[in-house]
This record gives sequence, structure tokens and C-alpha cells, in this order.
Amino acid sequence: MKNTILVVGSVALDSVETIHGRTKRALGGSAVHFSLSASQFSPVKMVGVVGEDFPEKYRGYLKRRNICLEGLEVNPGKTFHWVGRYDRDFKNAETIATELNVFRHFKPKLNGDHARCGVLFLANIDPDLQRQVLDQMGRPRLVACDTMNYWISLKKPSLLKLLKKVDILFVNEEEARQLTGEYNLIKSARQIMKMGPRGIIVKRGDAGAMLFFKDNVLSIPAHPVEKVVDPTGAGDTFAGGFMGYLAAAPDWKNFDVIRRAMSYGTVMSSFNVEDFSTKSVGTITKSKICSRFDKYVDALHIR
Amino acid sequence: MKNTILVVGSVALDSVETIHGRTKRALGGSAVHFSLSASQFSPVKMVGVVGEDFPEKYRGYLKRRNICLEGLEVNPGKTFHWVGRYDRDFKNAETIATELNVFRHFKPKLNGDHARCGVLFLANIDPDLQRQVLDQMGRPRLVACDTMNYWISLKKPSLLKLLKKVDILFVNEEEARQLTGEYNLIKSARQIMKMGPRGIIVKRGDAGAMLFFKDNVLSIPAHPVEKVVDPTGAGDTFAGGFMGYLAAAPDWKNFDVIRRAMSYGTVMSSFNVEDFSTKSVGTITKSKICSRFDKYVDALHIR
Repeated sequence: MKNTILVVGSVALDSVETIHGRTKRALGGSAVHFSLSASQFSPVKMVGVVGEDFPEKYRGYLKRRNICLEGLEVNPGKTFHWVGRYDRDFKNAETIATELNVFRHFKPKLNGDHARCGVLFLANIDPDLQRQVLDQMGRPRLVACDTMNYWISLKKPSLLKLLKKVDILFVNEEEARQLTGEYNLIKSARQIMKMGPRGIIVKRGDAGAMLFFKDNVLSIPAHPVEKVVDPTGAGDTFAGGFMGYLAAAPDWKNFDVIRRAMSYGTVMSSFNVEDFSTKSVGTITKSKICSRFDKYVDALHIR
Repeated sequence: MKNTILVVGSVALDSVETIHGRTKRALGGSAVHFSLSASQFSPVKMVGVVGEDFPEKYRGYLKRRNICLEGLEVNPGKTFHWVGRYDRDFKNAETIATELNVFRHFKPKLNGDHARCGVLFLANIDPDLQRQVLDQMGRPRLVACDTMNYWISLKKPSLLKLLKKVDILFVNEEEARQLTGEYNLIKSARQIMKMGPRGIIVKRGDAGAMLFFKDNVLSIPAHPVEKVVDPTGAGDTFAGGFMGYLAAAPDWKNFDVIRRAMSYGTVMSSFNVEDFSTKSVGTITKSKICSRFDKYVDALHIR
């Protein structure tokens, strides 16, 4: 199962308000956004936990995208529920409520199939849990992880232990700076590389993304979007497109492959922000993805 | 003089402090930053005003870059002096003092050679003065202008009159939003196009730049810079590279030409921020520019 991606992360119900409307207990969570995006490119198995209230229709929605839910535990209690709001500039999400519910006691358990996956994505959860997952794995050929400011302040030693075993780290600008104390992103990424990862991806929202891979530095723009409806999950959707494309490639360390993966991540996240919850990425066709990819890449072919 | 650029704007002495040091009365001003950048590509004539204190060495520095200073008036009094400071994130300049001095009564006067220039760049000055300059011109084949929040709030009617006669407008994100009341940059640019310009360039600092030209939308990243020393003049340096390259091209309306011009603007501004004042752009060789251009463009050739 060289090309199969195992993702471990949150499965949530999101109630989100933006200038374009609101959702109530819509499908969300890092593992969900990642999976819907990655499954456009590679097989995905999800490990997560939901409560007894998790709607059957959401389960069907994910399965129809060929996402394996054998690792989706159902525990007594309620599903993780996030309530948030965005201003019209969509820069920062204001958290109104975080009801962890069953997610509070999430202990990822892998079965034999999970452990044999060739690619692992550790979405943003407690770095100790991320490491426990990694320890249960066979010999994945590609391991990537995400994290957040919360873990960097509260569990830095655990995170640093994890980073030693990780190929690619996803962060945003603030997290890169927080992790290293270095303001300049190039210098910061170089310092993070010394902690273990050979690839760093800095997600910058509508300013695009930067990739640091060995000696290479690549900055690419976001795909311009005329109507941003809901940016929730854009980062995980980016990671999904990126990892999904890499997992399908024979040699993920080839820089041309990685640049294409960055572009697919960009394109997938541009779809994500165009509608609430998973509405856009969960229903998009491969031909729409390819056509936006071509348009994106062609615009940058400056000659 | 089809390819000669006339620039009208400020010539200043800048005292700037950043985390990397400080300058005292160093060469600055929008017309200066623009000219040093544009003169790498096309002949430039400058119209501006300085006081009797303007150092002879600065005059020589500009002349050595083949910038025509016949239109640089010397008036009794002191040269425009700006005192500013940047935080370590370089996002916003804090103005400590603005001593307009002779610039307060600047009335641009064009001679016959100026009026026959094929390309005009109206750097950020009072839109009434910008319009007076335009009225003195023959039939320039390309007119571009810059502006700022101050004129948008205080002299919007004058600015709107000017925009009717302008081909390309340079703004930053906030100015685009302020001018239209529209937050989304694509929508905002489309509204600005209805005011006259067929091309809008939105300068976004380290997030790169966006170009709107007729139906085309192009977003390009900044060239990653490892040590930002002083961003003063980066926007005018961008405009200089962009306009300098366009002026030298047989058909500036060709989109491939415009995309290359955007890239040269990006590259020139990346040099600008690497040193104080005009130290980097004023001394850079054409071969260094070309080599960074090739590197920048190649990195974006995703295939």
C-alpha cells in the first residue's frame, strides 16, 4: 500500500459564520478536509473519532469519495464541535466555542492495514499522539505533519521529538516564527530543517505558500478567488492536495513533482474557500481540478 | 522619444531606521527610486525639485545611471526630508517627521523634450499636479500613475479625473479597497477599471503583486529575500522595473510582455529591500538583474 495515505486528525462538526452566511454542524475537522482533498489523487484511510451524534449522511459522503472509514471510531458522547466566525477580511477566525467532546480522549488506534500505508499525514493534534501514531506504523516512505501555536507553546519538547522523524512539516508564518524565534521565513525554515524535516511548507493564506526543500526555496501565489465564502479547512485542503499528489508519484523527492504538488495544494485550497464546509472540495470533479491547475500553472509560465 | 520615460515625483533625503541600522539624509524619494530602477531598461528623464542642500554627489550618482536631470529644479530652501522607522516585520513605516520644505510648492514644469517622451510615470504626488503634468504632455503612448491613501481621502474627485486618462494604476491592497469600498481585490480592480485604467497593479509587499489587465488576472509571488534591510522605495522600484521594461518593448499591450514586466518589477524591488536607500538598485549590474530574473521565472515554470 505504497501509495495509500493514512491521515490521523480531527473529525468535527463546524458552525461557522462569515459575511456570506452560516453553517450549523456542518462536516469539518482537519482529517476530513485533508481526506476529501487527498482522495482526488490517492487512496485515503482515516483514523479519527466521532460521537454517537455524527450524522450517517456525512459518513456516506466520505465513503462515496472512497475514503476508508474503518479507523473512524464511534464513542459514547458527542462529536467535536467548533463554533467560529470570520470578519470580512477572513484573516483570523474568531473561536466562539470549542466543544472537544469525544475528541478530548482521542487515542488513535491503528489496524494492520493502517500500519502498512506508505504515506502518513499527522494532522494537527497533540504531538504526543502524533508520535504514538508514528510508532505504530511500519515503514512509511513519506511522513508529514501539521501543528499549531498551542502545541508549540505547550508541548515544544514533544513536538521536537516528533519532528526528528518527519519528512515534511506544514506551518503558517506565525508558527514558523514561534518555533524558531526567527522572523525571516527563509532563515526560520532553515532552522526548522535542522530539527529534522527536509521539507517545510509555509501556508500564507491569500499570499500563497512557500516551500523549502533541501536547498530549494519556492514561493508561489494563491489562485485568485473572487468570492471567498469560508476559509475553514483551507490549510488541510492544501495539505491534502499536496500529499495526495505526492503519494501518487513514483518519486516524491523529485523537485518537479514537489512543485506540481504545491500547485495542486494551491488549487484545491482555492476550491475549498469558495463554499462553506466541504461543499466545494467534496463534490468537485477531477476535470475541474485539472483545468484550474492548467490555468494556474500556465499563468506562471512567464517567458 | 518613443521609449523614453518621463517621471514626475519626489526627490528626497531619507533618514531611516530599521533593525539592521540607520541612514541619515540618504538619497530617496519616489522619482529617484523609480528612475534608478527604470534606467536599467530605458532612458529616463526626471522632473522634480530639490533645495540648495541637495548634495552634488547624489546628482552625480543619478547622472552616472544616465538619468536626465534637466528637469530637476533647485529652489531656495531645503530638500524634502523624511524621517521614518520600521519594526522588525517591516510591514508599516512609522513616520517620525515629514519636512516637505521646497517640495511643498512643487509645480512641475516640462520642457519640449519632456513633453515628447513616449512614456509617462506620475509618481505619488497631488493628483491635481499629476493632471497638470499630463496636460503638458504631447501624446504619450503609455501613462501610468501611483497614488496613496492621503489623496484618495482628500482629493478623490481630482484623482478620478486623472484616472480617466491613465493606462495603468499602481496601488496597494488598502488603496484599492479605499478607492472602491470593495474588499475583494478582483472585484475592486474591476471597479477601478471602470474609472479609466485598463491595467491595475496591486503591490502586496512580501505577498508579491497582482496584475489586472483587461480580462486577465495574474498573481505573482515576491522573490524571497533572506535579509530585508530597508523596504523604503520598494513600490517605486517595482514600478520602475515594470515601466522600464514596458517602455523598451515594441508593444506594451502584449500580455507576455506585461508578465515579464511584472517579473522585472518583482526582481528590482527584491534588490531594493536588500540594502538601505538606493545602495542596491543604484549599483546593480544588468547581469545580476538578468540572472535573478531567470532564477525567478524558472522557479515558476511548473510543468
